[in-house]
Parts: sequence; C-alpha cells; structure tokens
Amino acid sequence: MRWAEGGGAGIEMQEAKNEMWFEDTRITNLENQPFASPLRFAHGGGFVADGHHILYSLDAEGLVRMVREGGNPLGFEAAGPRERIHFAPSEVRAAIVTCGGLCPGLNDIIRSLVIELYHRYGVRRILGVPFGLQGLIGDYGYDFRELNPLVVERILDMGGTILGSSRGPQDFDRICDRLEKAEIHILFMVGGDGTLTAAHLLSGVVRKRGLDLAVVGIPKTIDNDIAVIERSFGFDTAVEEATRAIRSAHTEAVAYPNGIGMIRLMGRHSGFIAATAALAQQDANFVLIPEVPFELEGEMGLLASLERRLAERGHAVIVVAEGAGQNFFTDKEEAKDASGNRGLKDIGLFLKEAIEKYFALQGRAIAMKYIDPSYMIRSRPANAGDSVFCSFLARNAVHAAMAGKTDMLVGYVNGTFVHLPLALCAGKRRHVDPGGLLWQAVLETTGQGELCPA
Amino acid sequence: MRWAEGGGAGIEMQEAKNEMWFEDTRITNLENQPFASPLRFAHGGGFVADGHHILYSLDAEGLVRMVREGGNPLGFEAAGPRERIHFAPSEVRAAIVTCGGLCPGLNDIIRSLVIELYHRYGVRRILGVPFGLQGLIGDYGYDFRELNPLVVERILDMGGTILGSSRGPQDFDRICDRLEKAEIHILFMVGGDGTLTAAHLLSGVVRKRGLDLAVVGIPKTIDNDIAVIERSFGFDTAVEEATRAIRSAHTEAVAYPNGIGMIRLMGRHSGFIAATAALAQQDANFVLIPEVPFELEGEMGLLASLERRLAERGHAVIVVAEGAGQNFFTDKEEAKDASGNRGLKDIGLFLKEAIEKYFALQGRAIAMKYIDPSYMIRSRPANAGDSVFCSFLARNAVHAAMAGKTDMLVGYVNGTFVHLPLALCAGKRRHVDPGGLLWQAVLETTGQGELCPA
Amino acid sequence: MRWAEGGGAGIEMQEAKNEMWFEDTRITNLENQPFASPLRFAHGGGFVADGHHILYSLDAEGLVRMVREGGNPLGFEAAGPRERIHFAPSEVRAAIVTCGGLCPGLNDIIRSLVIELYHRYGVRRILGVPFGLQGLIGDYGYDFRELNPLVVERILDMGGTILGSSRGPQDFDRICDRLEKAEIHILFMVGGDGTLTAAHLLSGVVRKRGLDLAVVGIPKTIDNDIAVIERSFGFDTAVEEATRAIRSAHTEAVAYPNGIGMIRLMGRHSGFIAATAALAQQDANFVLIPEVPFELEGEMGLLASLERRLAERGHAVIVVAEGAGQNFFTDKEEAKDASGNRGLKDIGLFLKEAIEKYFALQGRAIAMKYIDPSYMIRSRPANAGDSVFCSFLARNAVHAAMAGKTDMLVGYVNGTFVHLPLALCAGKRRHVDPGGLLWQAVLETTGQGELCPA
Amino acid sequence: MRWAEGGGAGIEMQEAKNEMWFEDTRITNLENQPFASPLRFAHGGGFVADGHHILYSLDAEGLVRMVREGGNPLGFEAAGPRERIHFAPSEVRAAIVTCGGLCPGLNDIIRSLVIELYHRYGVRRILGVPFGLQGLIGDYGYDFRELNPLVVERILDMGGTILGSSRGPQDFDRICDRLEKAEIHILFMVGGDGTLTAAHLLSGVVRKRGLDLAVVGIPKTIDNDIAVIERSFGFDTAVEEATRAIRSAHTEAVAYPNGIGMIRLMGRHSGFIAATAALAQQDANFVLIPEVPFELEGEMGLLASLERRLAERGHAVIVVAEGAGQNFFTDKEEAKDASGNRGLKDIGLFLKEAIEKYFALQGRAIAMKYIDPSYMIRSRPANAGDSVFCSFLARNAVHAAMAGKTDMLVGYVNGTFVHLPLALCAGKRRHVDPGGLLWQAVLETTGQGELCPA
Repeated sequence: MRWAEGGGAGIEMQEAKNEMWFEDTRITNLENQPFASPLRFAHGGGFVADGHHILYSLDAEGLVRMVREGGNPLGFEAAGPRERIHFAPSEVRAAIVTCGGLCPGLNDIIRSLVIELYHRYGVRRILGVPFGLQGLIGDYGYDFRELNPLVVERILDMGGTILGSSRGPQDFDRICDRLEKAEIHILFMVGGDGTLTAAHLLSGVVRKRGLDLAVVGIPKTIDNDIAVIERSFGFDTAVEEATRAIRSAHTEAVAYPNGIGMIRLMGRHSGFIAATAALAQQDANFVLIPEVPFELEGEMGLLASLERRLAERGHAVIVVAEGAGQNFFTDKEEAKDASGNRGLKDIGLFLKEAIEKYFALQGRAIAMKYIDPSYMIRSRPANAGDSVFCSFLARNAVHAAMAGKTDMLVGYVNGTFVHLPLALCAGKRRHVDPGGLLWQAVLETTGQGELCPA
Repeated sequence: MRWAEGGGAGIEMQEAKNEMWFEDTRITNLENQPFASPLRFAHGGGFVADGHHILYSLDAEGLVRMVREGGNPLGFEAAGPRERIHFAPSEVRAAIVTCGGLCPGLNDIIRSLVIELYHRYGVRRILGVPFGLQGLIGDYGYDFRELNPLVVERILDMGGTILGSSRGPQDFDRICDRLEKAEIHILFMVGGDGTLTAAHLLSGVVRKRGLDLAVVGIPKTIDNDIAVIERSFGFDTAVEEATRAIRSAHTEAVAYPNGIGMIRLMGRHSGFIAATAALAQQDANFVLIPEVPFELEGEMGLLASLERRLAERGHAVIVVAEGAGQNFFTDKEEAKDASGNRGLKDIGLFLKEAIEKYFALQGRAIAMKYIDPSYMIRSRPANAGDSVFCSFLARNAVHAAMAGKTDMLVGYVNGTFVHLPLALCAGKRRHVDPGGLLWQAVLETTGQGELCPA
Repeated sequence: MRWAEGGGAGIEMQEAKNEMWFEDTRITNLENQPFASPLRFAHGGGFVADGHHILYSLDAEGLVRMVREGGNPLGFEAAGPRERIHFAPSEVRAAIVTCGGLCPGLNDIIRSLVIELYHRYGVRRILGVPFGLQGLIGDYGYDFRELNPLVVERILDMGGTILGSSRGPQDFDRICDRLEKAEIHILFMVGGDGTLTAAHLLSGVVRKRGLDLAVVGIPKTIDNDIAVIERSFGFDTAVEEATRAIRSAHTEAVAYPNGIGMIRLMGRHSGFIAATAALAQQDANFVLIPEVPFELEGEMGLLASLERRLAERGHAVIVVAEGAGQNFFTDKEEAKDASGNRGLKDIGLFLKEAIEKYFALQGRAIAMKYIDPSYMIRSRPANAGDSVFCSFLARNAVHAAMAGKTDMLVGYVNGTFVHLPLALCAGKRRHVDPGGLLWQAVLETTGQGELCPA
Repeated sequence: MRWAEGGGAGIEMQEAKNEMWFEDTRITNLENQPFASPLRFAHGGGFVADGHHILYSLDAEGLVRMVREGGNPLGFEAAGPRERIHFAPSEVRAAIVTCGGLCPGLNDIIRSLVIELYHRYGVRRILGVPFGLQGLIGDYGYDFRELNPLVVERILDMGGTILGSSRGPQDFDRICDRLEKAEIHILFMVGGDGTLTAAHLLSGVVRKRGLDLAVVGIPKTIDNDIAVIERSFGFDTAVEEATRAIRSAHTEAVAYPNGIGMIRLMGRHSGFIAATAALAQQDANFVLIPEVPFELEGEMGLLASLERRLAERGHAVIVVAEGAGQNFFTDKEEAKDASGNRGLKDIGLFLKEAIEKYFALQGRAIAMKYIDPSYMIRSRPANAGDSVFCSFLARNAVHAAMAGKTDMLVGYVNGTFVHLPLALCAGKRRHVDPGGLLWQAVLETTGQGELCPA
C-alpha cells in the first residue's frame, strides 16, 4: 500500500529524473516469439503489448514539468498475456521452486502457476522442485515431483509449501547442470531477496551457456520489503495473524499490576509488519522498528518512557521488529555471531532482560510476558485477499515466462502488475519512511514519542 | 485493486483526454484558512499542498504523448494534512453520521475520526448522530451522543456501527435546520451512493444558507462499486467471509449425488464480491453477476451447462450476485415491485426453483442447498487489512474537513488517497469489466463458458 | 452434558426401578470369540470385561435404597477393547457408511475407524460406501472405495464426509444382498435416528439369513437428541458456529431503530442447539424451541412481548429452532405437506411474516433481518473438542465390532462410553426439559417470560 | 472427560470403600437458613435438597456388591439452588476475586456471577476485587470496583479478566481485616490450586473470628488437573488453540529437509493439554508429559527414536508439556532455581539444544522450529462450550453461597455439578493415567513407542 509507505512524490520524481525508462527497467526477452498465444478472450481485448509501460511516479505536476522540459518519466513494462509467445506449449517443460522461509500464499502461487500453465496454455510437463534450491542440486538426490491440476486441487487451505523449501548457499553451475539435464525451459523461482539474487546470477550462467531457459522470479517477502514492489503476498495475512499476538499481549498486560506485554515480530530490515499490525490492533504503546533508532537510557529513552507509561496507565504493550535496535549489539557481539543471514542478535530477549533489570533495580515488581509468534504467523494459509493477489501474480508470471521473458520478476506498482529486471530489485530494500504517513500514524496511535535524545 | 478491475489504459486515457483536471476534479474550499495546523511531524515533512495532484492514468506512453501535444492529464487533489486550516480546533464542533446498510469497518472509521480529531487536532466537541440521517431530523427526537477516545476505545472488535444507521428519504432543509441549531461545523457522512448523493444535495442547501459547515463524505460500499474509487473499506472482509459460505456450499454439494450448492451474495449493481470470492476460494463452477448477462435455456444456457457439469463431476457450486439476471424479471413483475431501492427480484430463489423444476421434469434427483450469508457477512468486524485502510481513510477525512474542504469525499486511486468532488462520484458506479482481468480469471477458474447464445 | 439437560435423579430412578439391567440393555454378541486380541497395552491394564456395567442413575441415596430393597440398578455395558475377539483381523472385511445430513466430525469418525482398524487390529480390507445407503444398493452402481491410513491422512480439516451421504427409503433385502456379495463382515453405520432404525432392521435381516456380519451403529445427531445418549459429536461445533449467527443478528438488530434479528437454527424435535447457543452468546432475547409451546397473540404472547422489548430497549434478537411452534400449522396445512421427514412448515418465515404484519398494522417501522445459517453450520469441520470425542467414539466402535457385538451402537452416558442395543435408542428422542437447568438458564438469560397464557 | 482420563472403576471403588460419604465430603454450612429463596421456576421443580448426593463411582457391579455387604458408596453433595437461603439478598454484599494465571472463561465466570446475583437473587452490592489477592490487602491501596449487569454486558468477547489478577504470597489476617472492614458476606475466589488452598486457609481464619462470611471457590486450572474434578473451564478452549500451534509446527516441519517442529505447551504437573491437543490435531509424532518418564539416550530413547522417524518420514513434530522430563534437571540445577512455583527448568529449550547437539555431532543438518504459544492460548476468550460451562458453574457457585455454604468449591463429576470441601481438592492433582485410554490413544496416534529402556 503506497499510502502507508510514506515517501511521497518527492522521492519518486528524483528517481524519475534518472530517466531510466529505456535502460534500467528494460526486460530481457529470449530471442523470437514464433508462436501465437493459445489464449482466447471471451469479451475481446486481453493482450498487452511489450511497449506499454506503467508510470512509477503519480505526481501530476511533476510529470507535466518533466515532459515539457524534455524528460522521460520512469515506467515499468506492464505485465499481462502477450499475443506472441516464445515457447511451444506442447513441448515446454516448466519447473517451480520455492525457497527460503515460509510465507502465507506459497501454495496459492504453486496452484495458480499449475492451473494457468495447464488449462490456459496447455502445458503438460510441470515439475515441482523439492526443498528449494537443494532440489536443483543433483547431489541431494531429490526427484522432481510431477504437478498437475489434480495434485494442487485442495492445497489452498494448507499453510507452507507442498514442494518444501530450504536455505543455504548455492552452486549455480551445478544448478544449471541439473536444469539442462532435465531439459527445463522455464524456471519459476519463488523466494526472497537471496533467491532473487540467486535467480539473477543463475540467469547469467544460463545466458553464458546459451540455454533456451527463462528464469522468472516471483518475489516472496513476508516483510513486504523488496525495493520498488509495493505489495508482496503473505504480508496481509501476516499482519492479521500478528494482531492476534498483540491482542494476547494486551490482555496479559492489563491483567496484572505493571503488566508489560512484549511481542517480537518479523522484520529483519524493515518494520512494515510491526507498524501495520500496530495500526490494525491499536493496543501497542511502543513500536520499535529497524528504521527508527531508539535509546534505552535517558529521559527520552525507552526505559524511562515505559516507566512513565506504567505510572500513568498501569500497563504497556511493546511491539518490536526483530531487526530493531541492532545498534545495541554493534561493538563486539555482532562480530562473533555474524555468519551470513543469521547475524542478528535477539532484540526481544535483550529488551526483556533490560526492562526486567531496570525495574528490579528500582525494587518495582512488573509482570512481563514475552510472545514470539513468528512461526505461527508464517505457517498460516493465505487469507482471501492474499489468495486473490497470488492468483493474479502467478498468472502474470506464466504470461511472462511463456513470452520468453527472463532474468526478471513480476512486481506490483501503483496497484498494477509490472515486469521488473531482477537486477533492479535484488539486493535492494524498501523501508518504512520515518517521515512518512505510516510511521506518523504509528506515532499518533501509540503516543510513544521520539525515544531518542534530540 | 486496479488490476482486478479490468479496464486498462485505454479507458483511462479516454477520460484523461477530457482534460478535466482544473474543472471537474476541483475541490470546494470554505473561504480562508486563518489557522496554522496544530500538527507536528516527528521526522520533518508531512504537510501536503493543495496544488498537488495524483495522476489517474498510469499509461506512460500515453501521458508523454498527451503532454507533448499540449494536453493536461487527469489528476485528483492529493489527500493529507494541510499547513493552514479553516477551523479553530478549540471551537469547532464536529458530527459523525453512518448511513445505510452495515459494512465491516464502520466502527474503525468512527474510532479513527474521533482519535484524530481529539488527539491530533485537539477538537473536544465531537458528536455521534444516532441511527443515520433520521438522527439529523428533529422529529425523531434522537439525542446526539458525545464521542471521545474513551467511548471508542474498544469498538474495533465489534461489527456494525455503534452509532446505528437507517435508510429512507431525507429532507435536507430539516437536516440543515438541525445542524444549524446544533452549531455543527463539520459533518462526516459515512455512506453509500445514496448517502453521497444526499451529502452533495445537503452541501447545496448549506451553501445557499451561507453556513460555515464542511460536508465531507466517506464512501462506504461493501460492493466496492463507487465510480473512480478503486478500493472501499469492508470489501476485503466481505470477500473473506463470502469464501466461508462458498466452502460450505462446496462441502454440501460434493456430499450428495447431484449435489448443487448455491450461494447468493451481495452485488446489486456490480459483481465484485461474487467474482473476487470465487477466485479466493476456487470451488465455484458458475459465477453470475449483473454485468454479464446469461441465459437459462438453450444449449449454452445455465441449465444445460449445469446438467453437463453434474454429468461430468457429480456436483456443482453456483455463486450468484443479488443483481444478476434481472432480465428474467423485466416484463411485468418488476413494475409491481419497484419502489425505490428495493425493486430487485430475488434471483437466488428464482434460480433455485428453475433448477429444481428443470431436473424434476427429467425425473432426476438433485440435492440443492441454498445459502444466503449476506447479513452474516456485512455484520462482521473489519479484518486487519480493512482496519488499517479505515484508519488512514478517516485520518484523511479529518485533514480535509479541518482545512475547510466541503462537498467532497476522500477516495482511493492508484494506491493513494485523494480528494474527489461529490458530484464526480455520487450516482456513478464502477462495474466488473467483462473483458477485464478479473472476469477473465473467473472464467478460467470456473470453466463456466459463455452461458449465452453467441 | 447431563447438567444442561435437566431431568435429574427423579426421572432416572424411575427408569432404574424397571430393573432392565439384564434385559433391555443386553448386547447381542456374534457367537464365539476364538481369537486373542492383537492389542497390547504399554502400561498394563486396558481390556474391559463384558460383565462390566456403567450406572445410569447417579442418585446415591436412591441407589442404596434400591439395592437394599433387593433391586438392580440400570446399567449399560462398558465400551472398550475386549481380550477375545470374534473376527480374524487378517481376514475380516469392514465397511463404513455415512448417512443423512452433514454433521461436523464425520471425517473424524471415518479417519479414526480406519486408523484403529488398520494400525491397531491389522485389518487391511476397509471399504468406504459412497453416498450413504444408496451405495449399498446395487442398482445405483456405486463402487466401494478402498480406505487406508493414507487416504484419510488429511481429511480432518474438511467438513462434510469424504464418503458422501444420501437420504431416502431403504430396501434391507437388497442391502443385505450387496453386503453378502461383497463379503462384508463388519458394517459401521454412521447416522441419525432413521439410520439407527435402519441398522436395527438390517440386523434383523442379517440374523434371519444367518450371516456372520456385525452391524455397529455410530449415532450422529447434530441436534444432540438421541435418547439416553448425553453427547453426540458435532453438537459442540454446531453451537459454536450458531453463536456467530446470533452475534450477526444482534449486530444488525442494535444498528437500526426497532431492529429485530431472527436466527433459525436446527432442531426439528429438540431445541438443544438453540438453547445452548443462546447461553453461549448471551444476546438472544427470545428462544423458541419445540419442547416449549408459545402463543403469538395475547398479552403474554410473542408479539406483545416483542413489542414491549422494542419499547424498552429498541431492539430484539429471536432464536427459533426449526421445529418450534409447529402447533401454528396443525390444522390443514400440515396434512397437505407431511410426506415423511420433510413435513415441517418453516416457522422462521412464518414468524417473520407474522411480526412484520403485526407492526405494519400499527404503522410502526421495524428493521427485520432473517438469518438461516444451517448449511454453514453443519458443513464445518469439527472443532478440537469434537475431534477428540470422535476419535474415542470410533475407537470404541471398532473394539465392539471386532469383538462381534452387533445390533448395537456406541453411546456416551455419564461421561463414559457404553454399548447400547439399537432397539433401546432408535426411534426415541431426548428433549430439553422445560423444568430443567438448561431451560431455566435460558429463561434467566433472555428474560423472555412464559409467552403463554397461564 | 472421564473416559479420556483412564482410571476406571478399580480406582474409584477403592476410594469408595473408605466410606467417606458422611465425613470427608461433608460441606460446611453457615448456621441457619432463615430466608426463602426468591427463585421461582417456570415449569415446576427446580430446588435441590442438601441430602442429595451424586455417586462418584459408576461401577454398577461394584456398587451392588458394596451395598449388599453393608457399605456406603462415595458421593458428593449435588449443586443447585436451595429452597432456604442464609443471606438476605437485599443486604448481602458479595465480592469476586480472580487469581493466578489467565485462563479462557474468567470473564464468563464474572459475568454469570453478577447476572445471577443481580437478576435472580436481587443482590445489588457486588464488588470486583482488582488484581487478585493483592486487591484484598489494604496496603496496595486498590479500590474495589462496583459490578452490575451493565459493566459486564459485553465482556464475553474479551480474553483475560476484567478484574485483573496477581500472584504471590498472602497474609490471611490482613485479607480478613479488609473483608471485615468492607463488610463482605460472600467471597467468590476464582483460582487454581494455590488459590483454593488459600481459600481453605482463609476459611479457617474467618471461622476463628466468627465472621458471617461464605468463602466459595471456583476452580480454575487450564491444565484440567485438580483432583476429583473432571472438567475445568478454559481447558477446551486451550486445546483448540494448542492445535493451531501444532498445525504450524507440522507445516514448518514438513517444509524443510529433516524438519523438526517442537511445541511447548502448558502442563506443569499434568499433560492433559498436550495429550488431548495431540489427539485433536493428529500431527504430533512425540508427546512428552510429566506423568510418563522418557530417556534421551539409548536405542529406545527420544534422540534415537527421533533419528529413526526422520530417516523414515523426513520430518517430526514434538509436543512437550512444560513439566515433562524434569528428571533431567534434578541434581544440582533445580536446587538453585526452586523458589516456590517457578522452579521448573525449561524442558523445551533443553530438548531443543539436546536435539541440535545430537544431530550436529552426526554432521546432519536439521531444521528445528520451536514454538511456545502459552500466552496466546491462555489469553483467548472462551469458546462456546466453555462459555456455557462457565455460565452453569458460576450459577451453582451463587446458589451455594446464598445458601451459606463455605470452605467449599463447585466441582464437576460424572457430568454433574457438585459441592466439594476445599480440603478434599486443594493440594491434590489429577494426572494422566499412563495405563488409561487417553495415553493409549496418544501412543496409537503418535506411534512414539516407550522412549524408555524396559
């Protein structure tokens, strides 16, 4: 949701001034589209032309000014079915792999990919890769799984991914070997930032080997923090589940003298879940996210602010994103721990201890309840909104793949699906803007103040 | 969700070519803004200028071409807090009225209006109007209800509206009398098409009397069918609840020989709920909406199609929007019944009987189960996504009202909140585009075919 | 729940005085038990002896008196695994049939029967009968479905029955033909009153033919109204779902001037669901059940009582069981309609019209909302409590069947599973006692008064 | 649920042979019952006599034998309204206190106590004690809260307790001072084992001082582990919520190679929640409870069993009650920690580490996910079944208190409410019987084996 993200037109126009339209946002197509699409539309219309772009900035005045000054606004190739396609449906062999952590909607994505390939394009050879990228490395000895509409018929009610997933380092040459050997022409890679980066690197190897293989990314980030993309599947469900935990924390907090409920939520780099859930279930009194530094000590720090809150209202609810307050660990501890992705210290337990110590020193009894609902959130099936979103996202990925687009992903910008080069998004993140509407709303709702010395 | 609506750039550019920017989309402001806003932003930025507009069309090529040819693209005034405001917070008296049918999120709207007025602007005199517009007509004898943060503290878990609602004809002069007598300066009118039309007419009376009174509409349409506005609160929750009914109908249908589950959903003029719910819970085999005519009889008609479905699969699920198939009633029956809004014949019961008769004539036993979940859907509390949406929508309505904007509503276009003149939206509807992505997806998912003779 | 049923010791002692212990409650066993049970118990104990009976009455003083006077108290054979069994697990062929209306927990029953037969007794030939008793009549041409643990692995999340069901008349000779031809030795019949009666009659045919076939009933009644049995599966889930509908009706009722929410619930002969749901979700102001007659007209009648309620509180919620108020139809209408089970007139629509007419005559506007959630209730999957209950119920049915018990069902009395002869329960009903605790509690909660002339 | 508990008639008869009926189960009554009950019953009947007892054992043969041999079976005084009462409704002042950890249903208890006192008996002075027993000790300075039907009108949807709670040591003399000073005549104490013990000790002080004060316990144990009582409120809801966590753990486990999902549930002394939830949601492969010791090491130990499970199926789900495996901590660690109630070591984290170490030593990657849903479970509102149960439990507590019964609690035995002396239950626990039906069913469902050397 763009409005919730802050940012605003200023930032966007700045990007637009780069005039990246015909360069950084250009999508790679596998050569030639010899086949007519088998798609037929009941009520006319339907196909989307490659030359059609979706504006990134919505700033009307800015756009007019820029164009009059001879500039080109930033736009992204519109997603949708193409009239001419690259692969022959009867011969193409597609594979689907789901990577990284669980996220509500993975099975929706798998189901819609299969249904669209099978029923609309007539593709009959669809393979599921077991356990993420490990399933693409021969040594692990996993067999691919045949997918068809029957297999995916009733998977929408199940959380997780029927294909399984995994984490860990990848060897793109061996992955490419396996894909080549299995004669895969289309690889849908569903995953987060690491997976999209892997997809981009794999695309390079594929290109070098001259393979006729389209690599299409489907961005998965429960934190909703991939650059440019304004909505990612599973986020909405995650927020809904997170509100259950906040409600529990509130119930516990109000039930005891000096009750404190603390909920640790996802959000390694971006606090969207924490901030949005705090708005949906307006019981949080403090929201701590990676984007907004805070202090523990001092008159404006968290501890004194919490003490004031308890004095006034007798209880407090704290929502903390896992990536918040990492500054407290910088000096020595981080160095020891930092092995790749897992280097974050547990801010939840750190705060729990700090708060308990603070009040213990005052000889003041508190009742602290700590809730970490992360696995219960990410393993949920998608809610209705996410299900519908996934069904369109996956359809557009199939359209792109059949048309021979590669080294790209399907994104969502200004309420519309677009094609984005993997290089544009992978490794870049979207953050909560501390000056934006979302964070302003959180500050209003919580009344938490700055938590920082000026 | 723009992508789900169909339409696409062609339609939008057509509108844009009207160059309506400075005319039809201009917002009325009460004269002068003598006060500085009391709002302060923690991290800088924050205020939005009146001159800032949000583009309606996202068609990059089209917009560039238009501007180069000297045209002006269609844009809407951006919503948000204004630096200068019209009303003195310490003196202003605001009133909130909720009208028409229930919709998930009404209490979220009320709560956020109150919180924003009270805590951010410092407004202390906030009144709740009981039972809709009846509460604004003196003869009914209803007292206004004092609203403050304490009153609205725990209303988010409750469906409905704590203020109550009503339907029926209005007398704008008497409403205006009451508002004048009660010294109301801001009236938030939360309601559907009829209410927005009423708000526009009331604005006219107010203007004629020269009152210093801002009328701000907050569009409420569980069907998500108000023109221009791409998302309305409650719709997401309604779709989620509707999937429960579809699931039940499916469970019943598969459990009996020739089982047929039929669900009648909301959708008097537009089939968004029916179509979207059918995508979220992919068990529907036929979806019938007002926008797409269908036949009962004939080889391609519903009855024969249903018979084929039963022969092949043994069961069928039919989702019908209440406004579908009204053509079956045109001749005489409608005439008798049509008294204002309530003229629709019950298509659900009509179809139930027609189907039962059809198979009875064949001597073929069917097991028909008919479900009408409408009241159970609309009385639900908002889900998390709708709650967050409501909290921003209401905030923006407060910003607009305090700035002295009137005869307008807060809408949502391209993922951004905007100001729209009431005259632009009231009385106009958004429809499912039979050639658009949403309906295409429904046709794919159901496999229902045309249900019409070519 | 015994306490909720009313009744009390008086009634029970009356029955106990019949000294039926060794007569009416005697269970039929197929001749000889040549095999040792394959069951092994981890911590000793485990097997239950045939001679062990569970007391029906809990009245301590009464029982002591009776025994001292030389009487025998009423008891039922305790359920549980037997040390000697009738059927050789490696040779026995078991079949499962589910009949009548849907009820939460059917799939739980099926799953636990299969798991217990397969994993504990080592039975390998388990057949599912499709579509109820129709599946046992050759003419319909349905094939049996092979059942094993894999087939039933993930069916607990699904409502309905994976086997399907049906209604309608039965031909016990043809059913017996089919069972004989298919060499079935054990038939589990899951169904309501009609099915249990059918099971008893079928047992007679089986006995006459001298077949080595055990017929074991598993009582299914969402209304919880089978005689003697104090808890039936699905009831708890049904009450939970019913509260959702009552909540919706309440939300609608309070939102409008003179709002009336009416919910029609199951309960053809007994009002347990209506009464219990009204206690769980304490928003009902009138509860109408088959056991307690009421009047429409007169000072104490429903209409005048409703009018007083509206005058005092402005809204009302009415919960009506489908079998309530059938006296209003007795004279002529019933005669026309009564064809077997379906003879009930729709009391919900009748009341809706009567109420609307009553207030229309007074020229008083009301806002009536009518909700019939029956199909949405009965198609739900079982909640956790019902799931656990089903798993024990089905286990005990397997123990009974393997031991060669027949013409019996597994019941639940005083919190314990027992064996009951089919003849004891079939065709007899349990009712809400108008003088008992449950109905007293409803009268207290609703404050509805007598609704009858003294 | 008696059937799920194991035990069986043998144990019960043993107790019965003690002929405790007129001794240990005798209820204390405050002297004389001068007032006629204001209760009126619509359909006759209704009052329960003090001399009426409910049998504890259900063993029919055993009972007959015992009585014929001249014995008296064990019975408990039946709960219910008494015809004569001790307190004058217009003068009595009742107080309600909720103690210890949260449990679904606390607000249902509070609401029904208030409603029954107010509407049925006409008591007008009902006080809520804030924050548990702390609220009864003057030094804390908490004011009592006036309770009436309006205050409790909409609290059923809220988890926790509107009165608040606390833990900690008590000073019965000061509590008694406060009760005396506030002129309380009835004290309802809702709490677990510690609270019931406190209630018994307080009763002693009250008796010594000769106060006219009834102390009535309402047993609260989310673990369902208070001696004699077969069902406690909140347990059913807790099991339902626990299944959500097990489902999540299963989803995580199957999604990764060698995935292990571990859920730590409540159950300090008894494993009812863990065992029952494992039956309701049949995904657990290992259930560990306090009553059944297990080994980590050795061929039959947990680690080797887990390794075999992973080798066979690739994933495993472990449910562990917090009190399980405390033998692993006995030697020195416990000594340090054991300060009152909180002496348990965290078996969940202990197992997590032990398992991770075991597989790390083998160089085998596993994916371990650890879920602790305890606070999210206990803070839920009661489900429908628990709500109804609470409403009857509280009603019976009011009947007992008004009749002048004291030093007792309201229990639930054989599906009936009874009066139990506090001394009979406080400090004694109910346990899962390792040879009983519940644990047998868990062993069947999980297939976990003995996990112990013979």
